[in-house]
Amino acid sequence: MDHVECLFCQKKSPLDLFDPFCPECREPMVFATMRRRRAFALEKNLALEKFLDFLPLDKVDGTISLGEGNTPLVPLRRITKKYGLPSVLAKNETMNPTGSFKDRGTAVAVQKACSMGIEKIGTVSTGNMAASTAAYGAKAGLRTFVFLKEDSTPEKTLSTGIHGAVLLRVKGDYGKIFLRSYEIGRKQKIFFINSIDPLRIEGYKITGFETFFQLGRRAPRYVFVPVSSGGHLIGLIRSFQDLKQEGLIKTLPVFVGVQAKGCSPIARAYAFGKDTFQRLAKAETIAHAISNPSPPAGNLVLRMIRETGGLIIAVTDREILSAQRELAEYEGIFADPASATTLAALIRLSRSRPFKPKDKAVLVITGSGLKSMETLERQKIPVITTTVDGLEKSLSSKMKT
Amino acid sequence: MDHVECLFCQKKSPLDLFDPFCPECREPMVFATMRRRRAFALEKNLALEKFLDFLPLDKVDGTISLGEGNTPLVPLRRITKKYGLPSVLAKNETMNPTGSFKDRGTAVAVQKACSMGIEKIGTVSTGNMAASTAAYGAKAGLRTFVFLKEDSTPEKTLSTGIHGAVLLRVKGDYGKIFLRSYEIGRKQKIFFINSIDPLRIEGYKITGFETFFQLGRRAPRYVFVPVSSGGHLIGLIRSFQDLKQEGLIKTLPVFVGVQAKGCSPIARAYAFGKDTFQRLAKAETIAHAISNPSPPAGNLVLRMIRETGGLIIAVTDREILSAQRELAEYEGIFADPASATTLAALIRLSRSRPFKPKDKAVLVITGSGLKSMETLERQKIPVITTTVDGLEKSLSSKMKT
Repeated sequence: MDHVECLFCQKKSPLDLFDPFCPECREPMVFATMRRRRAFALEKNLALEKFLDFLPLDKVDGTISLGEGNTPLVPLRRITKKYGLPSVLAKNETMNPTGSFKDRGTAVAVQKACSMGIEKIGTVSTGNMAASTAAYGAKAGLRTFVFLKEDSTPEKTLSTGIHGAVLLRVKGDYGKIFLRSYEIGRKQKIFFINSIDPLRIEGYKITGFETFFQLGRRAPRYVFVPVSSGGHLIGLIRSFQDLKQEGLIKTLPVFVGVQAKGCSPIARAYAFGKDTFQRLAKAETIAHAISNPSPPAGNLVLRMIRETGGLIIAVTDREILSAQRELAEYEGIFADPASATTLAALIRLSRSRPFKPKDKAVLVITGSGLKSMETLERQKIPVITTTVDGLEKSLSSKMKT
Repeated sequence: MDHVECLFCQKKSPLDLFDPFCPECREPMVFATMRRRRAFALEKNLALEKFLDFLPLDKVDGTISLGEGNTPLVPLRRITKKYGLPSVLAKNETMNPTGSFKDRGTAVAVQKACSMGIEKIGTVSTGNMAASTAAYGAKAGLRTFVFLKEDSTPEKTLSTGIHGAVLLRVKGDYGKIFLRSYEIGRKQKIFFINSIDPLRIEGYKITGFETFFQLGRRAPRYVFVPVSSGGHLIGLIRSFQDLKQEGLIKTLPVFVGVQAKGCSPIARAYAFGKDTFQRLAKAETIAHAISNPSPPAGNLVLRMIRETGGLIIAVTDREILSAQRELAEYEGIFADPASATTLAALIRLSRSRPFKPKDKAVLVITGSGLKSMETLERQKIPVITTTVDGLEKSLSSKMKT
């Protein structure tokens, strides 16, 4: 029997797929630390199989995997040089099956759902999580229900709907839709795999394990990750806590959660030394994927960041757009604005905190720029129009610059 | 010194980055078969390093790689069952750094370019190859020039331009622009890495090698791949020819090159038993990525397909749209229409050719659906609009169906 625990009131209870919150304090629960002996199985192909001992799964059904994870850790040589930084690397999560880190969490949750005989899954999302849940639901032959915000772009709606999910565009408050999903889920036996689901969080641990091995069995000094609901950052912290518990590392990395200034409830609370965040009335940022005015795991993030000596910082849209451009122009990575916050934060932090030459900083690039094409209008990209005969002349004019 | 050869007139000559065609018959040249002893290095991380002995590179510079390749081979269990087919698997090339198979070819060409001190690269493309070349050029710090067709969509233009490439939108005949690129390239010292570049073709071999190992050191019975210029198919055939030469397989797979009926010059020539294709006056298909009325390696594809006992078939836009939907709804893979031709062809072929139970068919999924969002208008995707209060009722109505 799987157990989850609340890190606030220490309450433990059996895993309930239909309610991920603590019955006492309503904070999100996480899996209770496993005490059994654990080992890595790096010779396996699937990421889930490699790290199975660290996941709340008994086995992996390869026929419902899309080959998630195993993403590259790419050295950012040119950016490192430009800013005189220590070694900076990008964990490129855009190379997951549906183009975002969400696939790692969805994969674990769908494995568990299928092993428990669940036939219907759902999610409340307008973006990456919607497409990911719909894709894995399709692969496993589950019926999938997606609750979308009223203003979801056609792009995001279509790339979710193509997988055959039932799409419900819901007018009204996003927070209310989120809570209502669990009520409906229990009644209709739909497992809503929302952002802070404890199974999802366990899936994100694999990113940390892969990073550790890709660095030659070492932890980086810094891990930068965008923060929306908080589930991803919690998963990353838990992975390095697991590694520490196994005696494989002595000190945890400094985790730097990054928010966009236009929607930074957790960064604000952190800056003012508060234990709980204040829900925002409005959000305004180009980083739509992390624009969450009421993050369900916000308080848990604040607690874990303080306990591990991490930071939460906010960056402006201007810094985000500049970082997005630099990732693309210097390193060939087309990240969405949410992912670009990590580089913006690193640059900002490097001004106030001198890095040591041996420090390694990992930026977790969470989603593909292809899913946020609308934001490219803000990047001024020049195009020269010419003819076959005029081609050489047009080109020559660019050669001199 | 690298040598390339012409498979038509057997002429060999030193590699010329600025002209990939045979000086005698103007067909594309390929690398002369290497006779030295070759070995795999599967313990390495980068795909290029694993198969270095089979590539025309002396070494791999990891700092200019984006982590291309190492893509999953995913069993398509539900489609296999639905159509009563033998084992069907998808080689998911959409999980490359820029979302298409092109990255494998670009990676090899850019490695070579940098090792030879080339400072400027270019390509003639409107889609996947443009973004791939721009991304790798950025990563390596090269100046990159992209010639686009007049009617390129803003999406494809922007996702290339974000990498800082010089974008030239050229009015006029695409075939002329293609040939002109080499003239300009030689004069301006720009290495144009176009679709049939021999270095590109060598890069595509890695897909075949990976497939062989992912199947437990076996070749599949069939390999289905979309055909545009022909470079990709040629690379795949060459990989299994290499494996045969090494004594690792006894028989080659049956290679099935797939074109869209609205633009199928190679499939037409094949059907009529011709050795050379006829250039088409117009192309009309939803599969834009393979809409090439005058494929530069068309004749070479015809020759290699005949010599290896393969097939070239064409499928309709209706079949393509249906296959795209099924890949998404049954298997969670959001492929572009060009990639979906492979499933359409398999279904079509299964009606006339009984597969044996032990046969394995690999579909090479070449590009992400996210790059062809405009085609989704043709897929009718229903969205239900509701309110928080009406949510349960709206959902219940979908539960009964």
